[in-house]
Amino acid sequence: MKRVWHDGKLVKGRISLSPFDRGLTLGDGLFETIAVMDSVALWRFEHVERMRAAAGLIGIAFPEELLDIAIDAVTFGLKGSHVLRLTLTRGEAARGLSENGSRPTLVATIVPFDAALRFKPLTLATALTRRNSYSVSSSIKSLSYIVSAAREARILGAEDALMLNTAGRVACSSIGNVFVETEDALLTPVLSEAVLPGIMRAEVIKLARLAGIKVREGKIPVAILRDAKAIYVSNSIRFLRPVARLDEKLYRRTKLFALLSRGLLNAETEQLLLG
Amino acid sequence: MKRVWHDGKLVKGRISLSPFDRGLTLGDGLFETIAVMDSVALWRFEHVERMRAAAGLIGIAFPEELLDIAIDAVTFGLKGSHVLRLTLTRGEAARGLSENGSRPTLVATIVPFDAALRFKPLTLATALTRRNSYSVSSSIKSLSYIVSAAREARILGAEDALMLNTAGRVACSSIGNVFVETEDALLTPVLSEAVLPGIMRAEVIKLARLAGIKVREGKIPVAILRDAKAIYVSNSIRFLRPVARLDEKLYRRTKLFALLSRGLLNAETEQLLLG
Repeated sequence: MKRVWHDGKLVKGRISLSPFDRGLTLGDGLFETIAVMDSVALWRFEHVERMRAAAGLIGIAFPEELLDIAIDAVTFGLKGSHVLRLTLTRGEAARGLSENGSRPTLVATIVPFDAALRFKPLTLATALTRRNSYSVSSSIKSLSYIVSAAREARILGAEDALMLNTAGRVACSSIGNVFVETEDALLTPVLSEAVLPGIMRAEVIKLARLAGIKVREGKIPVAILRDAKAIYVSNSIRFLRPVARLDEKLYRRTKLFALLSRGLLNAETEQLLLG
Repeated sequence: MKRVWHDGKLVKGRISLSPFDRGLTLGDGLFETIAVMDSVALWRFEHVERMRAAAGLIGIAFPEELLDIAIDAVTFGLKGSHVLRLTLTRGEAARGLSENGSRPTLVATIVPFDAALRFKPLTLATALTRRNSYSVSSSIKSLSYIVSAAREARILGAEDALMLNTAGRVACSSIGNVFVETEDALLTPVLSEAVLPGIMRAEVIKLARLAGIKVREGKIPVAILRDAKAIYVSNSIRFLRPVARLDEKLYRRTKLFALLSRGLLNAETEQLLLG
């Protein structure tokens, strides 16, 4: 089932938007992408809190109640697996970059998603496009999204891009956080490395630590990838994907992947019980 | 007069947009901002060509004829000074970052602009947010615009932000190209320094060279600004603005500013005769 919510109600087809909405004119806004199982938005609280924090960072008034209403409206009575997308823009404003006189715009959409696609192996190519280490937009789910890295990857015959930050160290993929499994630990770039505070990233870290695995958040030089046992990409929709190939190098699945994917499915069950 | 054109016709108020339009969901698109005097779009050819080149770079089909129709429709019969904004998005697409099955969306708006605001002195503050030296979006007029730098400047009590690139050298302001006047030359960051190929930037370079001034495009360390005679910000709407203050340092107007502004007004007259 496909549903669209805008401006207080479910709408059919297109939405009616100001041509001066800063989301459209300047990519000035935020989004969240949330997995929905039956009518439960998984990790709903965490997604809403992340969006609230990001809105605070860029000075968009956070329409908390409206957000709740929108999520309830698009998920009501759903069966099966869906993806919920929340788009929050700064709203209409006068020409130019100043932010006067705007009321945020909220759009929520829901589309079906095949849950069998979770945990699927992934191919990556290292992109020339890098995450900006000197921009707040690297640490929020900004509408000003770097789509050019994903494009580079497809041109190189991979499904997604491995992105470095402007310092040349491992940052993330264009759609998820990156984990690197070494002989004795699980590494992931620390948040100050121009990466998003992923909801699934936090879950993976928690699960791995509970299982007694050493998790290190730090600065990760590219050279570490060559000798890694495995690489993973996490996000809220696909949960955790093992990297099958990065550029020319192939990687195998490991026991840790089996352990982490079982853990994430258990965490999902907890979310369903909460919801 | 305010006018909006979308999807083949002039519309009143809001536009009807797909909630899955990548311009809205991912800032995946381009824009141009063009000064319009009476019904003439100034440097129309140059703006259209820049958008065509940028569309080629990010793989958006360029709707040339539609663009002409839109510009003609919003400028027809206008009197006085206006700003024309062209927004071109990749259009509607399936969820995710892939680009399948989209037809570009074009929106044109026109709003009045007070031509007396041109050439007005400007205050700048150096922003912590930097232009990404490793992203194509730094050299195209992408919808993924860095609005956080402009926000920083306002918080610091300045009208606009001086942006460095990720290498820490002078790039541009958040809305224009930067020129630095020294004792014997006019300097501006070379295009590879993560700056936009500004239409007005090209005009200023041409005019200065015609007047026998040495113009150097290169890499500009921040330290040069301290000893500069003057700093300017150029863009298509405000033409050329002398910087009155950058952070704590004040700058005076120079003879070169008078010469360049006269030259730009002459160039505008030529454009009006062409139009």
